[in-house]
Amino acid sequence: MRRVAIVGAGITKFGVREASWKDLVQEAGKAVFEDVPNLDKKEIDSLFVGAAQPERWVFQTHVAPLVAELLGINVTRAIARTEVACASGQAAIRYAWLSIATGLSDVALVLGVEKMNTKFMNVSQSSMINVGNREFDGANGFTAPPFFALAAQRHMHDYGTTREQLAMVRVKNAEYGSYNPYAQFQKKVTVEKVLESRMVAPPLTLFDCSAITDGAAALILASQEKARQLTDTPVWILGGVQHVSAAHTTNQMGDLSQWVALRKAAKDLYSMVGIEAKDVDVAEVHDCFTISEIIEYEELGFCRKGEGGKFIEEGESYIGGKVAVNPGGGLLSNGHPLGATGIRQAWEVVMQFRGEVPKERYVDGAEIAIAHNLSGMAQLHHLMAYSVNRPQDVKFGR
Amino acid sequence: MRRVAIVGAGITKFGVREASWKDLVQEAGKAVFEDVPNLDKKEIDSLFVGAAQPERWVFQTHVAPLVAELLGINVTRAIARTEVACASGQAAIRYAWLSIATGLSDVALVLGVEKMNTKFMNVSQSSMINVGNREFDGANGFTAPPFFALAAQRHMHDYGTTREQLAMVRVKNAEYGSYNPYAQFQKKVTVEKVLESRMVAPPLTLFDCSAITDGAAALILASQEKARQLTDTPVWILGGVQHVSAAHTTNQMGDLSQWVALRKAAKDLYSMVGIEAKDVDVAEVHDCFTISEIIEYEELGFCRKGEGGKFIEEGESYIGGKVAVNPGGGLLSNGHPLGATGIRQAWEVVMQFRGEVPKERYVDGAEIAIAHNLSGMAQLHHLMAYSVNRPQDVKFGR
Repeated sequence: MRRVAIVGAGITKFGVREASWKDLVQEAGKAVFEDVPNLDKKEIDSLFVGAAQPERWVFQTHVAPLVAELLGINVTRAIARTEVACASGQAAIRYAWLSIATGLSDVALVLGVEKMNTKFMNVSQSSMINVGNREFDGANGFTAPPFFALAAQRHMHDYGTTREQLAMVRVKNAEYGSYNPYAQFQKKVTVEKVLESRMVAPPLTLFDCSAITDGAAALILASQEKARQLTDTPVWILGGVQHVSAAHTTNQMGDLSQWVALRKAAKDLYSMVGIEAKDVDVAEVHDCFTISEIIEYEELGFCRKGEGGKFIEEGESYIGGKVAVNPGGGLLSNGHPLGATGIRQAWEVVMQFRGEVPKERYVDGAEIAIAHNLSGMAQLHHLMAYSVNRPQDVKFGR
Repeated sequence: MRRVAIVGAGITKFGVREASWKDLVQEAGKAVFEDVPNLDKKEIDSLFVGAAQPERWVFQTHVAPLVAELLGINVTRAIARTEVACASGQAAIRYAWLSIATGLSDVALVLGVEKMNTKFMNVSQSSMINVGNREFDGANGFTAPPFFALAAQRHMHDYGTTREQLAMVRVKNAEYGSYNPYAQFQKKVTVEKVLESRMVAPPLTLFDCSAITDGAAALILASQEKARQLTDTPVWILGGVQHVSAAHTTNQMGDLSQWVALRKAAKDLYSMVGIEAKDVDVAEVHDCFTISEIIEYEELGFCRKGEGGKFIEEGESYIGGKVAVNPGGGLLSNGHPLGATGIRQAWEVVMQFRGEVPKERYVDGAEIAIAHNLSGMAQLHHLMAYSVNRPQDVKFGR
């Protein structure tokens, strides 16, 4: 199998953008092409687009060829749009990775995009109910905020996690976001400020929640041979897995604070890559809500189950702690344009490895990074691992 | 790279179904599981779902995990929904193929589904404008029927293709569809009947067009080792490519009857597989309109450019002719539930290779099959090649 590297990364400003879906695509495309000046566009043979619900938000489907046209790409090997809701972007990276690993593709463009803030905000917001089993959870209004609120309540009940500890996740990510010019929110916050923000679903207040965001991000992936021609700092894909429990409708799920699929996925990923949790230097994790990041510390093996609150309180997920978690500000600061988020995480990893981030959020000497997305009501967990210094053969099988 | 086989296939009746989207998923799932009685569902580690616009037609996104729940699948390796409009199903097969070829997955479920006939038929139909560049072609009503009508007009002008030759494609496919109990339309038709049907877009009448259809189809794909345990008649994937011109908006396209991307894709596929056009025994091609199949004969190399009309008139695309094209009735008879069509084509190939079709539409002795989808206004072409007797290493690279 061929080794695969990210050789270029570009991103748009995330936020409530005065820009169309197409504008965002072109902005991210321009950014990624400028990042790989040696690349002749004709070398790109494949295109994978992560997008969650353009059908509802911009009345457009069949988005992959539209991206090809907007960016002037001729596909001669593989093309698709991938969708797994909040993890749509990472699925596009994975498809490109497999395509290059086999030799089907040599150079692939991967682009994630979402335009969620539109004139029709009632449609934008109500369309989020389509992410769950619409006729059960959706019809009953059981969308993400109440789900993650219940997960938080259960975690607080079982493990003594405090409301303040939840808020500390936002404080950390807001601090790092303040050094990220592409983030939707760039202001630092305090625990008090998080607690004072308006209630969304108890115990989660507004500042515990990620936002409805417009944005796009793009990557160029290439085979080892091509990568060496295109960049001096390729970022290698070391592995990637996804785990999903058959239970999808929430009343079929068990204890909402036990993310067993993530626990298993992490074990699977570490085995594939030949590392342990303690070897991870940078973790981009899916902090769609503050409670998510706390549970992720645990299920990813950064601390023991139930000790996620203590982990943030003791500063272990800050740069300089046991593992730097979301040094780019995470979803909480960047916002969460569904299809772009997974690509934005990879962009952050690339910028970290190259040292192209402000020093206040730079993880010096990082060699191993993981990126995690969840989708839906945390039933699905999506993981990738990256390294800057270790091009190694990937052990795809078990 | 590992060899990959289809080891099971199942399908629902296609048509205007008194069945929900979820019913269709379960019906196809039941069919495919019954087709592989030795399979323990726990062996399935990955799931790929082809679906075009469930967001608009059934108000549901994040459909892959919903399929997992409905069919009781625990994913431990890879999951995604794929979308490339009319070719969404084939993209799911391709993702599964790459996943198994690398060793990431061992056994994958691939399912395609679309529920297009709903209470809101104005939404169902108007949503088709989202397939093109909506703000140009869509806003001007330039959807599939007028596009393919113009392609037909140009082909008739340049090559002398006759109205009757177009109709003959429907006559052939209706005949084979009459022996397919899963097809939406199972009545034979005559050239006169096609010509007499109501005008849609000159020269295309109703019977020149495929329909708005509900349906689902599913496959089990496995590595060679697993395949040998699960079936005596594995159908091997020999290769697959996709070609797309950067021109997507129709006023950026050239001569509408020259499908250059398909010409190049066919050449690429044959080179990958080590065959020539004349070696193809069964061709499942994307006859969304009668003119499509005629142009496809040409671009796939079954006849010379411009001679597609003569090819059908002389019976060369019938069973017993140079190549059996759409022996299951094609899209014209089966209908075209977008996400399911690509999987339905693979199902037909499996049934042909096994000899599990009525003798009137059986291609005896077939060894090589190809499946072709187009999407959008024929800017994108998607090809796969299959064989029953030749497990061979795939030459992924060029």
